[in-house]
Amino acid sequence: MSEPAVVLLSGGLDSSTVVALAQVLGFDVHALSFSYGQRHTVELEAASRVAAAARIVDHKVIDIDLRAFGGSALTADIEVPKHESIDDIGEDIPVTYVPARNTIFLSYALAWAEVLGSTDIFIGVNALDYSGYPDCRPEFVAAFQQLARLATKTGVEGDQITIHAPLIDMTKAEIITTGTQLGVDYGLTISCYDPDDAGRSCARCDSCLLRHQGFVDAGVPDPTTYQPDAAPA
Amino acid sequence: MSEPAVVLLSGGLDSSTVVALAQVLGFDVHALSFSYGQRHTVELEAASRVAAAARIVDHKVIDIDLRAFGGSALTADIEVPKHESIDDIGEDIPVTYVPARNTIFLSYALAWAEVLGSTDIFIGVNALDYSGYPDCRPEFVAAFQQLARLATKTGVEGDQITIHAPLIDMTKAEIITTGTQLGVDYGLTISCYDPDDAGRSCARCDSCLLRHQGFVDAGVPDPTTYQPDAAPA
Repeated sequence: MSEPAVVLLSGGLDSSTVVALAQVLGFDVHALSFSYGQRHTVELEAASRVAAAARIVDHKVIDIDLRAFGGSALTADIEVPKHESIDDIGEDIPVTYVPARNTIFLSYALAWAEVLGSTDIFIGVNALDYSGYPDCRPEFVAAFQQLARLATKTGVEGDQITIHAPLIDMTKAEIITTGTQLGVDYGLTISCYDPDDAGRSCARCDSCLLRHQGFVDAGVPDPTTYQPDAAPA
Repeated sequence: MSEPAVVLLSGGLDSSTVVALAQVLGFDVHALSFSYGQRHTVELEAASRVAAAARIVDHKVIDIDLRAFGGSALTADIEVPKHESIDDIGEDIPVTYVPARNTIFLSYALAWAEVLGSTDIFIGVNALDYSGYPDCRPEFVAAFQQLARLATKTGVEGDQITIHAPLIDMTKAEIITTGTQLGVDYGLTISCYDPDDAGRSCARCDSCLLRHQGFVDAGVPDPTTYQPDAAPA
């Protein structure tokens, strides 16, 4: 019998790859998405498409209101930065950073995992391409795993909870190569921080630039639908 | 100038005492409460009363839907256990345990603290009287503090985030004695897991029994309003 796992699914390229990796490992995937006042609600439509295509066991969408606190270009009225090319992306923590986002997401995943009797949680964080976000680093994942083992009935009773971050050391190109081999249809996914209402990508935000470069480096055709007059450099 | 702190405020005896302790330490209190599908929404009315009486800077109530996962007598349709006396309370993790609740609450507090530029979060967990809950233990608090320092821009930039749990080693009587000296009006608070619609306590759940015994041990009159025909043993 397969074991259940909770997989955080944003509808982006990374988390969609993680769903496929969790299934390859034999887990029954219970995907968890969040509606968090983000500008890009088209992400949730992408998450539903990915969940359906992967024929996962269950997909829950939880409403959380990070707008109550503000503090990020993705949840407050701060403009998403655009660049002409990938070389212009800064090294500082970007304004698109959402305070404590992955901590909150993993906390909900932990709650669901405990109710399911699951000891496995998957998150698609990636330290190489998003080094600006503190909650995408291996030490963050390790600290959450330690917390999870202390925080829960499951942990206390001796079952070791594992936070799987299979993409943590992969380049975007490696992620795309892996997912392509596993049959992930990246045309269903969206990574843009500033898509239009039709779900078309802007080609100029950090996320679009990194995603497109990944396809170039992997030698895989970029299936992303871009806004009219927008094309990756 | 006072520093801001985020204080988790349930409207119960413990967290109301923590508000007073944070103020004594000189912090500007930003209180955070949750509406989480719990049976005892009267808690939120108590939280508002306590916030007003303490003249705190700000009080936010965040809607979170833990009912989506179920798994606890406080969020699903499981009966709250009642006992004739405090000696009948079991040693196992009780069914009123909410999976990952304090992890989720602290995650939101961390998000707000980061937006406020605050490095201080207060939580009223108490290991002695609630040893059945894994997320009320000192090692849980220490693990969350470690996570917080790795998870956030504030932590990465060198400011040390502190999770204050000033009640962690106190008995219920010590908490009551402390709060009484600080002027906390416990008549505004509610601790019952199964209050009626008028906010009156049942006198028989674990929380009522522990609270009443605390007043007895502290030699302080119990100001709790109990349901008709209900009185503590």
